[in-house]
Amino acid sequence: MYSFKDDYSEGAHPRILNALVESNLEPLDGYGEDKYTLQAIELIKQRMKRNDLDIHLLSGGTQTNLTVISSFLRPHEAAIAANTGHILGHETGAIEATGHKILSCEVSDGKLAPEHIKPVLEAHTDEHMVKPKLVYISNPTEIGSIYTKPELQQLSRFCRENNLLLYLDGARLGSALCSEENDLQLSDLGGLVDAFYIGGTKNGALLGEALVICTDSLKADFRYYIKQKGGLLAKGRVLGLQFLELFKDDLYFDLARHANAMAGLLRNEISRAGYSFLTHSASNQIFPILPNRLIARLQEKYLFYVWAKIDADHSAIRIVTSWATKEEAVSAFINDLRGTSRDEGTGS
Amino acid sequence: MYSFKDDYSEGAHPRILNALVESNLEPLDGYGEDKYTLQAIELIKQRMKRNDLDIHLLSGGTQTNLTVISSFLRPHEAAIAANTGHILGHETGAIEATGHKILSCEVSDGKLAPEHIKPVLEAHTDEHMVKPKLVYISNPTEIGSIYTKPELQQLSRFCRENNLLLYLDGARLGSALCSEENDLQLSDLGGLVDAFYIGGTKNGALLGEALVICTDSLKADFRYYIKQKGGLLAKGRVLGLQFLELFKDDLYFDLARHANAMAGLLRNEISRAGYSFLTHSASNQIFPILPNRLIARLQEKYLFYVWAKIDADHSAIRIVTSWATKEEAVSAFINDLRGTSRDEGTGS
Amino acid sequence: MYSFKDDYSEGAHPRILNALVESNLEPLDGYGEDKYTLQAIELIKQRMKRNDLDIHLLSGGTQTNLTVISSFLRPHEAAIAANTGHILGHETGAIEATGHKILSCEVSDGKLAPEHIKPVLEAHTDEHMVKPKLVYISNPTEIGSIYTKPELQQLSRFCRENNLLLYLDGARLGSALCSEENDLQLSDLGGLVDAFYIGGTKNGALLGEALVICTDSLKADFRYYIKQKGGLLAKGRVLGLQFLELFKDDLYFDLARHANAMAGLLRNEISRAGYSFLTHSASNQIFPILPNRLIARLQEKYLFYVWAKIDADHSAIRIVTSWATKEEAVSAFINDLRGTSRDEGTGS
Amino acid sequence: MYSFKDDYSEGAHPRILNALVESNLEPLDGYGEDKYTLQAIELIKQRMKRNDLDIHLLSGGTQTNLTVISSFLRPHEAAIAANTGHILGHETGAIEATGHKILSCEVSDGKLAPEHIKPVLEAHTDEHMVKPKLVYISNPTEIGSIYTKPELQQLSRFCRENNLLLYLDGARLGSALCSEENDLQLSDLGGLVDAFYIGGTKNGALLGEALVICTDSLKADFRYYIKQKGGLLAKGRVLGLQFLELFKDDLYFDLARHANAMAGLLRNEISRAGYSFLTHSASNQIFPILPNRLIARLQEKYLFYVWAKIDADHSAIRIVTSWATKEEAVSAFINDLRGTSRDEGTGS
Repeated sequence: MYSFKDDYSEGAHPRILNALVESNLEPLDGYGEDKYTLQAIELIKQRMKRNDLDIHLLSGGTQTNLTVISSFLRPHEAAIAANTGHILGHETGAIEATGHKILSCEVSDGKLAPEHIKPVLEAHTDEHMVKPKLVYISNPTEIGSIYTKPELQQLSRFCRENNLLLYLDGARLGSALCSEENDLQLSDLGGLVDAFYIGGTKNGALLGEALVICTDSLKADFRYYIKQKGGLLAKGRVLGLQFLELFKDDLYFDLARHANAMAGLLRNEISRAGYSFLTHSASNQIFPILPNRLIARLQEKYLFYVWAKIDADHSAIRIVTSWATKEEAVSAFINDLRGTSRDEGTGS
Repeated sequence: MYSFKDDYSEGAHPRILNALVESNLEPLDGYGEDKYTLQAIELIKQRMKRNDLDIHLLSGGTQTNLTVISSFLRPHEAAIAANTGHILGHETGAIEATGHKILSCEVSDGKLAPEHIKPVLEAHTDEHMVKPKLVYISNPTEIGSIYTKPELQQLSRFCRENNLLLYLDGARLGSALCSEENDLQLSDLGGLVDAFYIGGTKNGALLGEALVICTDSLKADFRYYIKQKGGLLAKGRVLGLQFLELFKDDLYFDLARHANAMAGLLRNEISRAGYSFLTHSASNQIFPILPNRLIARLQEKYLFYVWAKIDADHSAIRIVTSWATKEEAVSAFINDLRGTSRDEGTGS
Repeated sequence: MYSFKDDYSEGAHPRILNALVESNLEPLDGYGEDKYTLQAIELIKQRMKRNDLDIHLLSGGTQTNLTVISSFLRPHEAAIAANTGHILGHETGAIEATGHKILSCEVSDGKLAPEHIKPVLEAHTDEHMVKPKLVYISNPTEIGSIYTKPELQQLSRFCRENNLLLYLDGARLGSALCSEENDLQLSDLGGLVDAFYIGGTKNGALLGEALVICTDSLKADFRYYIKQKGGLLAKGRVLGLQFLELFKDDLYFDLARHANAMAGLLRNEISRAGYSFLTHSASNQIFPILPNRLIARLQEKYLFYVWAKIDADHSAIRIVTSWATKEEAVSAFINDLRGTSRDEGTGS
Repeated sequence: MYSFKDDYSEGAHPRILNALVESNLEPLDGYGEDKYTLQAIELIKQRMKRNDLDIHLLSGGTQTNLTVISSFLRPHEAAIAANTGHILGHETGAIEATGHKILSCEVSDGKLAPEHIKPVLEAHTDEHMVKPKLVYISNPTEIGSIYTKPELQQLSRFCRENNLLLYLDGARLGSALCSEENDLQLSDLGGLVDAFYIGGTKNGALLGEALVICTDSLKADFRYYIKQKGGLLAKGRVLGLQFLELFKDDLYFDLARHANAMAGLLRNEISRAGYSFLTHSASNQIFPILPNRLIARLQEKYLFYVWAKIDADHSAIRIVTSWATKEEAVSAFINDLRGTSRDEGTGS
């Protein structure tokens, strides 16, 4: 069984493990104050072309999201998210557990725009309601779509005009920035969002996300919040060494490009085989709509999630590729899809 | 500069890194449901000689403590801890941040006994006060002392008679169980406490603590709590592989024994050199009281914390050894202490 | 300006004030343990025809809702509410501030039914999502509709079969139970819901809601929760005396009947004048759809909320009657509506 | 049985009830926006000789304390209180339930001074510990002592120099300000503390505390916090009318003076009878130390708390007087004390 279930099935890119091994017996300061962590942070600042950033390395996405949102908001303030937003439905109420409501906006393609947020602001007028204060987006979104630079600029402008913070969850940021449809640079983000994180776990690290805080007023005492929420690893080196390796050259982006290329191959071939997609995705997750009988046959050899029922005979599945996805596996999948699809007649 | 600051300065025991490297490209289920995690859990159950345990691997001590305590208690219930307890003063109010008060008991040696808890129970009589419900201890304690089996049995009995949960923080449990003064077995704990954790981070792992829940009523839905608090690593394999390596033979205990042996060497020689100690410690942390001038000289070559001022001329320092402490470094430290102390005249 | 804005514009029914005055200098126990509170609780038990109920008097609806929900749920559990539910949008995130998510169900008439809840249960399958545990309803609903006995029985059965708690917010319970369309008795509620409250503030009391806990497992330590959330009044007599007065005879129901009668008069006459309503309401809130020009004229003499825009020329307004609404004011309003409407031509 | 148990045994001063009765049927805006509340706020501002204050009326002390502290602090910040502080031990962990630790300072007379706070600041040095941010005091203290103006000035200066907020719980503020030992004016408080509340419940109101926020940065959105915590009464008039009555002339102070006078009578006579006191109290609570046999006899006719055991034969009791305490009752108590004490021999 080859897995297309997710992008965190394997361990880490070998160079990352190697970095852990080589430095292993060197005694270092704990809690993220070791030299490797400081170097990793320095490298990210260089990529961001800015020095006035606070960067912290945390262990995972939910940990980062809950630490950020609970520290940025005052008790009566709420986050706004697309109805597909990860924090809304897939983090066990982690944000609410810190005391904050998330206001959901119905969107069609996973992306929030000013038009979705405006009615929320208009509806929240007085102290009987929460005060919308932070806009949560992810790039790519939960369903694989990516923000264009103009879209993000427009959203950013809207947030500033309306005194809203803009926070970007970059669990798969590499895939977004390396998408062939992408027109954003990593260094653009500093001017567009108040904070974001560069996902490591889903792009070749064992674990780890690099949180970048761009806005001065949000920086104070952030290490307290990390510690209080249980996110300050004693051996911070484990995170520092990984991000150092990912950013000392283009490794972070190379890994994302590979994942995207594998998804692109699948997308093209599935499309050529006559199938359509649930959503337009330019990143490493694709959602082809296939006949249920074909899905059943593919499931004999491949692991993936059945995402949504389309009609009595068809479902959308989710295929995720990663830095570790093998081209042979992609080719085999395509052959199996074609082979099987020949028996099935043309696609949906 | 050689560091005796803590037991988390180095990476992981080489066998652990090796296990990560060897399994690296194998695709595995995420979120702690991979086969290595399941095997590690199985091995710990065998060591505990019980099958009816729920075991979860978490990333760090504060994460574990806050997840446990917030899920075991109802909103009005409080924890009880020794005044030196880690959760009281060194976790940035992580427990209170989940809504629960910690009631502090003044103790002299870091250890809680029924006599400390009784007055707390007697003082909390009605709904204007919190309801004491969980006793938090650590073994070894924050100041290096360890519980004897009779002490823990007495405390356990007291807790049961008074409808209190007993939770043991085992950040350095290996060191306690391998102390020459210890008379407790790992497998004894199942019958004595409601839950405890086996610390990995401070005993040779990159990160990771194995939480063992012994009491049935505390087991339900525990994975929800881990996820909600941000503690569920996508690549749970990172924790599973480490605990598997630590418990597939005696590695976990061998590492603790080494740390203890190094502390023992230091303790004996410092004692022979005529110095006394702030507390009696039978584990891998010792607190010798030294002349300030001697401390200053040692600080030129070694890193350690100055723990407490004793009088105008003397202070207690904290020396921590670990699985990675080198015997040569210990010898050198002793020589430096002796050599310097010769110049200084006799010790305090 | 006569106000139809709400049912809490006036003070208390004169008999209630009189009870406060007459007992005023009598020294009584504090914190809800005075004899009047105990008598009030006894009377409510008699009305409920059950002795095995825990009844607590609290100061307001939000206070009651947040105390109930935060004490009934464990940290990962969530409430379910209709999209119009008061706790969702009009309590400043009070429930989330205690750590719990509210899952919203789209309904058309304010009422939750098993068909709305089923998909929520089906979508929440594992520890990456909150666990739905408590169904929140109000009777009457936020938009004036009321539950029939069969509807509530069906919902109750569904909750029990699915291990869900059912909690009824009775801010305007009097109005629901005294509606001419109602077929529920107060004493029916004990067998149908796990807890509910009898609203005093909106039915003639200065302040106060009587929370009735029916299910044994939810009763323990409830006074701790009230105190912890700041809801335990030192002079609990203020609540006890009011509920005693309301329930020593039929005053509570008489007041509700009056409010309903006034709403009924308005409903009939507005209907006869040719106007329709946004929702079918059988209680003391009605939502007529009127031409904007008519609304403007009525606003010169009456206070009420414009509730929703219907089209370019029409809006729905909300008219609320109360125990204190004067029949002359109702007649005047109807005359003004008719008179104005004559000028306007026929209604929408 | 005459009660000296507390100062909230009776209802309200008759003038207050009268104000409620007279305005009862007047329709008013809800949620604290009625004209009476606005007038009461205006009167308090006049007494404070400042216009730049935000004043809110809340229902009780715990409600006020938890709303204030949770809104003033960021998640990692802690409150500091004397070990006798009400929020520490008598509010069921209400502050911790909002996520904040309270750091306790051992004091001998209930009063916090810079010397108690300095060591707390020195001990909290980094992100592994909470950040002390708000100093909580009450005047009078939990044990009846009062702050002098120089003491409060010194504490205020210390707080400002150390970037600490100073919050004063004035549950019995009237009694402090009307004590014969007092040298503080109500209007002094604006320049000394960041916020405080003027207690109504324990000085003649049915319920209600007037929170005064002096510092600009703490004022924003405060009504959101009140609503979120369940403290915004629909019929805010109930609070407004009471504070209007208390402050339209000197009623608030007259009531406190009466309570103090009654306590003074008792203090003098108990002292003349040869008994000493547990603490020096200049307010309406006194703590005489009496022989246990005398206490037992007094308990046959009077209600009061036995506060602390002094030795085998003596205990301290707590006697509280109020606006409603009758001079005849005081005289009778004194006679009974003397009479009984004659049988007992001289006092302790």
